[in-house]
Amino acid sequence: MQPLYIQNSLTRKKERFTPLSPPYVGMYVCGPTVYSNVHLGNVRTFLTFDIVYRYLTFLGYQVRYVRNITDVGHLTGDSDDGEDKIGKKARLENLEPMEIVQKYTNDFHDVMRIFNMKSPSIEPSATGHIVEQIQMIQDIIERGYGYESNGSVYFSVRKFSEDFPYGELSGRRIDDLLSNTRSLDGQNEKNDPLDFALWKKADASHLMKWPSPWSEGFPGWHLECSVMSTKYLGKTFDIHGGGMDLKFPHHECEIAQNIGAHGGERPVNYWMHGNMLTVNGRKMAKSEGNGFTPDELVTGNHPLLERGYSPMTVRFFMLQGHYASTLDFSNEALQAAEKGLERLMTAIVKLSDLPLSVEGMDDTQIPKLMERCAQAMGDDFNTPILIGVLFDGVKLINNIVSGKVTISAPQRQQLQEGLEGYVLDVLGLEVENKASQNGGDEDALMGLLVDLRGKAKDNKDWATADTIRDTLGALGITIMDGKDGSSWKKD
Amino acid sequence: MQPLYIQNSLTRKKERFTPLSPPYVGMYVCGPTVYSNVHLGNVRTFLTFDIVYRYLTFLGYQVRYVRNITDVGHLTGDSDDGEDKIGKKARLENLEPMEIVQKYTNDFHDVMRIFNMKSPSIEPSATGHIVEQIQMIQDIIERGYGYESNGSVYFSVRKFSEDFPYGELSGRRIDDLLSNTRSLDGQNEKNDPLDFALWKKADASHLMKWPSPWSEGFPGWHLECSVMSTKYLGKTFDIHGGGMDLKFPHHECEIAQNIGAHGGERPVNYWMHGNMLTVNGRKMAKSEGNGFTPDELVTGNHPLLERGYSPMTVRFFMLQGHYASTLDFSNEALQAAEKGLERLMTAIVKLSDLPLSVEGMDDTQIPKLMERCAQAMGDDFNTPILIGVLFDGVKLINNIVSGKVTISAPQRQQLQEGLEGYVLDVLGLEVENKASQNGGDEDALMGLLVDLRGKAKDNKDWATADTIRDTLGALGITIMDGKDGSSWKKD
Repeated sequence: MQPLYIQNSLTRKKERFTPLSPPYVGMYVCGPTVYSNVHLGNVRTFLTFDIVYRYLTFLGYQVRYVRNITDVGHLTGDSDDGEDKIGKKARLENLEPMEIVQKYTNDFHDVMRIFNMKSPSIEPSATGHIVEQIQMIQDIIERGYGYESNGSVYFSVRKFSEDFPYGELSGRRIDDLLSNTRSLDGQNEKNDPLDFALWKKADASHLMKWPSPWSEGFPGWHLECSVMSTKYLGKTFDIHGGGMDLKFPHHECEIAQNIGAHGGERPVNYWMHGNMLTVNGRKMAKSEGNGFTPDELVTGNHPLLERGYSPMTVRFFMLQGHYASTLDFSNEALQAAEKGLERLMTAIVKLSDLPLSVEGMDDTQIPKLMERCAQAMGDDFNTPILIGVLFDGVKLINNIVSGKVTISAPQRQQLQEGLEGYVLDVLGLEVENKASQNGGDEDALMGLLVDLRGKAKDNKDWATADTIRDTLGALGITIMDGKDGSSWKKD
Repeated sequence: MQPLYIQNSLTRKKERFTPLSPPYVGMYVCGPTVYSNVHLGNVRTFLTFDIVYRYLTFLGYQVRYVRNITDVGHLTGDSDDGEDKIGKKARLENLEPMEIVQKYTNDFHDVMRIFNMKSPSIEPSATGHIVEQIQMIQDIIERGYGYESNGSVYFSVRKFSEDFPYGELSGRRIDDLLSNTRSLDGQNEKNDPLDFALWKKADASHLMKWPSPWSEGFPGWHLECSVMSTKYLGKTFDIHGGGMDLKFPHHECEIAQNIGAHGGERPVNYWMHGNMLTVNGRKMAKSEGNGFTPDELVTGNHPLLERGYSPMTVRFFMLQGHYASTLDFSNEALQAAEKGLERLMTAIVKLSDLPLSVEGMDDTQIPKLMERCAQAMGDDFNTPILIGVLFDGVKLINNIVSGKVTISAPQRQQLQEGLEGYVLDVLGLEVENKASQNGGDEDALMGLLVDLRGKAKDNKDWATADTIRDTLGALGITIMDGKDGSSWKKD
């Protein structure tokens, strides 16, 4: 199998990927908190791991890809303070929290489909794993790393850090963290400001709560991912992914919880983090007014957009940057991507009827091209390099079409299988049906044809009139001549 | 508000619908057990309640529509025996049970989308409500209607029937049930053969299990619906729907559980049951080889299908039968539905440019037509009657087009709003884009236009050549003249 190297966020090294039990690979990716519409920054993160999933599958691995839905426990303060994000939205929209969950889960799925993302193997939700979360809290308490306080349960980071390293993933030193934290005025439930919630007691107004040994309450936000990755992938698994912003505290807390509950194994062998999307050089964020939704992007209905761009254009644009680098979104870049994608897909479509010759080209040429594709992807999923190689493929195709280079039948099969594999399967690009996007085009074309036939008849140009009628007839389209002009219908 | 009458399966009477707290309506519908692909019989059931949801919304009600996903507890014996359906499929496909759940939930959602079904407000799953199911079992035990036996918990039908009616929904008399049951050879966990499981102790090989006060096990199949309807709609709610085959024992057990846990109120005011789909007169079932999937239906890829039919044709065909009657699926009926749908949709498309006159028709004519639509739907959602009335509307439209009847501008608005409301919003029919189905039509039309422009230029008919170029230019299509003839591209 083609070697694959992954930049491991945990070790900060590019490491050769070796799964625990080949050909199986377990991958966990932090999914959305379903309290608002997905924006493009989220799309980039999920695209990163869609590519990882696709490439591992392409290499022949059998991947169990788990991506969760956060539907409880994520508080507005992103830590242990504030309101539940979904509960708050439910109050604002005057809906039951699970109606909010349904609405924004549907939106998320629609967006994933539009951008041609593969469905994960399992898409578990936090509310679907309350029992398991309570069990893990009990395990953590039993091992001495959790304590109850006033009906809530907290994870003791100080206690944990005496036995295990804490901060390894995010590169934070526990001593620095301890000296930098403010004193505990008001937060007197916690023994230490670094501690984080495993279970929170709910007050009377809280909408989402469950019974537990400690109180009627709800799980802490970090807990669900530890629980669901363990349940579906085991105590140690291959790859854990998510956005860069989740590295600390979320992923750091996940590691501590897993080790705190199960003992001293590193739970994840390869940590991967996707970088941010910026807009004209500024971070994409709702507060900046530049966090446009996929729908705004396709319609062009946003002050920062000169016009609409198709989902595949956006996908291609994003793949032109490496996942670990920031990527800047601009109209110029999108328009360039649109042209590039068209050039690529036009060449791919031509593959199936390239003119053949008996001779063909040098037999090493196509294998070399495919080898370069594999090297690009094998080097930490380097899609921009891959796309560069694919454009060398486009050049080759165009040279074959123009007769500068010859290709034999077996070579064409090799080229077609190879390029289609990388373009369609690995990058997940598809030929977009512009007709169905623009909807009205067929009507407009038919209107023009009906007019032309009318004029031909007026000029007694029966040959042209008949050509139009017969060609349309073959498509199942009938022109009907009425008193007030002609119309058409389809069988 | 327009009066609505519903045939109530519980009382066997057609009753005027009065919600508990207007304008809110709560509706619960039993969703799929996600262990296999959806077949058309399932589609019919969900279509029935899609129409109920759409019409209640159309009338101005604010409907909370809950439709569950059964992802645990449904055993192959459809009662308390056999393997878990999902666990069994997981074993056969060598997957984790939740991978089976994900796969067939995705399939179910795809099918619902293809047939233009509205998403429910909440789509809760059985595994997502283990805590709540354990709580309800505890409530039932406390009230004396449940008992533990060897780690499992059963509902005592005999005890319940001493205090409350049992069998009311399905019309079964408890004495008949008691005298007709076989003795308990082997099933010695139950006190009585009529009892049903609330919690089942799992054996070591069972894949899906959770801790509980009684054993590591899983909830009985009937329990989830009682729990989730209560959680999201309250102890008493308006409408409960499902397929006819669920009336007994599933819905009967649901009623017993709700009353057993919460006391003597009827939990549901209106019970509705959708009837079966038959194929050439025989019941649709997998074992009969006639349970084709939506995909087979659209492609025509099944021995019983002469050709493929579009999803809207199938939707229209199903709506031509009343939900409470059986409906027989045949190629003839589908082909007739296809023609009928085309006639209807062609007329609807014409509405927006009907020729107007100052005079118009008798001012009572359109309100009378709309009144008849409302009466049809108000009479237990009678879609076949509604469709009959809509065809009177089609006749009217065609008479206006041919000049036999005149229509004024305000009348046209009234007619358009009225008919579109029933066709698009209530029946959920859409104009299908044949171009995008047939894909290649645009290319063929463009090929013809490029030829015609070439001929016009050959004949020095510059006017025609320019008309073609300019009209296409407006569509963003450019014709490129090269050495070897002309080609075209789209911006």
